[in-house]
Amino acid sequence: MKKFINNIDDLLADSLQGFAKAHADIVQLNLAPHYIKRIQPTAASKVALISGGGSGHEPLHTGFVGKGMLDAACPGQIFTSPTPDQMMVAAEAVENGGGVLFIVKNYAGDVMNFEMAAEMIDYPSETVLIDDDVALPKNHSTGRRGVAGTLIIEKIVGAGAEQGMDLLACKALGEKVNSVTASMGVALSCCTVPALGKPTFELADTQIEIGVGIHGERGRDTVDLVSASEIVEQLMHALWDDLKPSPKQKVLLHVNGLGATPLMELHLIYLAAATFLESRQLLVTRSLVGNYTTSLDMTGCSITMTLLDDEMIELWDAPVNTAHLRWGC
Amino acid sequence: MKKFINNIDDLLADSLQGFAKAHADIVQLNLAPHYIKRIQPTAASKVALISGGGSGHEPLHTGFVGKGMLDAACPGQIFTSPTPDQMMVAAEAVENGGGVLFIVKNYAGDVMNFEMAAEMIDYPSETVLIDDDVALPKNHSTGRRGVAGTLIIEKIVGAGAEQGMDLLACKALGEKVNSVTASMGVALSCCTVPALGKPTFELADTQIEIGVGIHGERGRDTVDLVSASEIVEQLMHALWDDLKPSPKQKVLLHVNGLGATPLMELHLIYLAAATFLESRQLLVTRSLVGNYTTSLDMTGCSITMTLLDDEMIELWDAPVNTAHLRWGC
Repeated sequence: MKKFINNIDDLLADSLQGFAKAHADIVQLNLAPHYIKRIQPTAASKVALISGGGSGHEPLHTGFVGKGMLDAACPGQIFTSPTPDQMMVAAEAVENGGGVLFIVKNYAGDVMNFEMAAEMIDYPSETVLIDDDVALPKNHSTGRRGVAGTLIIEKIVGAGAEQGMDLLACKALGEKVNSVTASMGVALSCCTVPALGKPTFELADTQIEIGVGIHGERGRDTVDLVSASEIVEQLMHALWDDLKPSPKQKVLLHVNGLGATPLMELHLIYLAAATFLESRQLLVTRSLVGNYTTSLDMTGCSITMTLLDDEMIELWDAPVNTAHLRWGC
Repeated sequence: MKKFINNIDDLLADSLQGFAKAHADIVQLNLAPHYIKRIQPTAASKVALISGGGSGHEPLHTGFVGKGMLDAACPGQIFTSPTPDQMMVAAEAVENGGGVLFIVKNYAGDVMNFEMAAEMIDYPSETVLIDDDVALPKNHSTGRRGVAGTLIIEKIVGAGAEQGMDLLACKALGEKVNSVTASMGVALSCCTVPALGKPTFELADTQIEIGVGIHGERGRDTVDLVSASEIVEQLMHALWDDLKPSPKQKVLLHVNGLGATPLMELHLIYLAAATFLESRQLLVTRSLVGNYTTSLDMTGCSITMTLLDDEMIELWDAPVNTAHLRWGC
């Protein structure tokens, strides 16, 4: 295993300190327990948005803390849920009279630990559960996973909270956006978790993994490597079948790199995905291409599609000032 | 070789079309010959900034076209210089009465082709040559290479041009920033050029390449893999010896991912580099961490340091609205 590390036990703390130092105009780090909070002051009664999850997906979630998006993020160890005390202390730090909205990707550990935190804090709180990954069926025993669509919910609800929406309105908005968001991923090669020191699964030189998650787990199918256009067709059909959009529907199209895929290839994927939608009379109204929800050094990408209404477009366009998503500020 | 491509001959055009489509609010693509230009109107007599070079380094340069930075970028094939007609047609498209400043990384092909374009256009033009890579000695036969420091010159001169600096002032500013900018890179593994189908050099599992360039060429030394802190020490000493900063000097510190290195590791590198500088009484005043000047899917990073004065800080902070560098707009 070749990585830039000093020792595995300090990797997360070193990395968080570097992140906070590089973005000291936007965020502040608490080391024990770990959380990142926004430093720009918030209006009284603004709902506080808190997300978190295992590390290794950067810039998600720490890179999205700041004005117009998250108030705090709680990073667990790599691919490991944060502990309830992280969310409790973060809530204490950022709650400002409007209550707390937890944005939680649907993984058993995350769900349990955010629930425990919600029970133990002294503030009103609500939770939005993200389950945008269509690689798993809706009736899967633990439900579907939360993947790259998460940042879209964080951005849109973050703008709503900044504009004064109350706690229940923020929760309803988050659930609405989640319900019209679908994602699916594909890996060309797997990631190496530092503590393991080798890839969590192996793919032959001629094989790819379709419907892959973001934790180095196997996907839905191992298939032969085909052209980018054919891969995109497979992913887009899965999104289409899930969302069943009508003609003239406006959509946000997000092509997300899983960590080690060059931007050049992500833009090629974006072209094929946008062409797929436009040839079916959909309107690709907003776009996001880049490495936003990664899986360490995995080679691959995911495609996310959100069906937009006018409110969602206005909130997507609203100013945001975070380390890794920034416009209008 | 596993990549998201349709066929190798169309990779660049597909990718550029995807890029331009995803960022249609900021840039426009010309396909024959290839150039990307800014779509926001410019003030009359603003100096037009044009850069370019081989592809495979995205987001450099196309991702830095827009208000406050480049007016146009001319992408060559992968790791191959753009041809003079690209720069000529781009100059024709963006010149607005203030002349043209070419920002050129110091590679023989780039230098020659930009020179030919400069001779053939009907506008006043000047060139700034970027040679920030300290891995090669200053007296190297072809001079030093231009690497990740390039975007710092593009940002600072872009802001100067936007504020009305004339052509000679822009050239002088660019040369000043270049003279106080130093970079050095390290690779953990090499990149795969699609047309070759295999890495351009191989490293053993226990070896890294110090002083690597951005075209898959061998670096200065092949050495044993050591801790991140030791790697950073080596790179920082090289930058320090080149720039010889005085105590209390303000610096911009840029940690750049070469393509396949997780952000988590880049932030860890940043922490070590900033600590190196601060322990020597330098003031890390501005920071940039991420994948900005890549080398396809190379695993590795570079560190760039620029000695800042007040003018450069003000221009660095000035509004910029490009696909991959955006603030204040």
